[in-house]
Amino acid sequence: MALADCRRIDLPKILDPRGNLTFVESSRQIPFDISRVYYLYDVPGGSERGGHAHRGLHQFVIAMSGSFDIVLDDGGSSERFHLSRSFYGLYISPYTWRYLDNFSSGSVCLVLASANFDEADYIRDYDVFLKEVRARELSGAIL
Amino acid sequence: MALADCRRIDLPKILDPRGNLTFVESSRQIPFDISRVYYLYDVPGGSERGGHAHRGLHQFVIAMSGSFDIVLDDGGSSERFHLSRSFYGLYISPYTWRYLDNFSSGSVCLVLASANFDEADYIRDYDVFLKEVRARELSGAIL
Repeated sequence: MALADCRRIDLPKILDPRGNLTFVESSRQIPFDISRVYYLYDVPGGSERGGHAHRGLHQFVIAMSGSFDIVLDDGGSSERFHLSRSFYGLYISPYTWRYLDNFSSGSVCLVLASANFDEADYIRDYDVFLKEVRARELSGAIL
Repeated sequence: MALADCRRIDLPKILDPRGNLTFVESSRQIPFDISRVYYLYDVPGGSERGGHAHRGLHQFVIAMSGSFDIVLDDGGSSERFHLSRSFYGLYISPYTWRYLDNFSSGSVCLVLASANFDEADYIRDYDVFLKEVRARELSGAIL
């Protein structure tokens, strides 16, 4: 199941009195090469977003400022993660439905993604998501 | 000169009442592929850092939260940039000496880099930097 592949990954933290430094390198700390970086900001407290899955995209999500929750669902079970510090992140594998909520005011959500934007990679309808997950299970794609 | 290659780059900004979104894609908004992402955080107000150049690394710096200044110097002239919003960033080409100062309390500085960490790529002595810049000029490497 896709949810079993998703996990919190702790990142290196280089402590320095001038400010701390954390880094993420392609296919080292995370299991994919970084192609695209995007971020959510000017987020009103309590906002929600997400509600989609990807067919091929790998992502890694970091709370750069403030905090928020991510709920992951692989069509069989779901799990809620609370992100609140910038020295760890959540890896999200393909075929994982996700939504984000409980944003603190002024939080910044950074996402590293394995490919550039491609609308055809999105599954935006939960019923379509379930159907494709079941088809993959039947085909043995994710045994 | 290297400073002529450095520039502020405005990024796409997708406005949304749930929070705005900005993205950066490898070799699209910025002139290199992203290999490493790192960030400075828990920065005390007024901190300074930097004071080095790279021989081959391309970088793109974004103020994800708060603000700071970056001073760039190509051995011939220097320029100060103030970064304060997350929908633009500063591209820094190889052979550019840089330091960062004037950090606001709690600011977050995000850096996208074209290669993984390599100590041999750093020039940490300003006199060595000037010497290499002069040698490159004589060899016609950056005419």
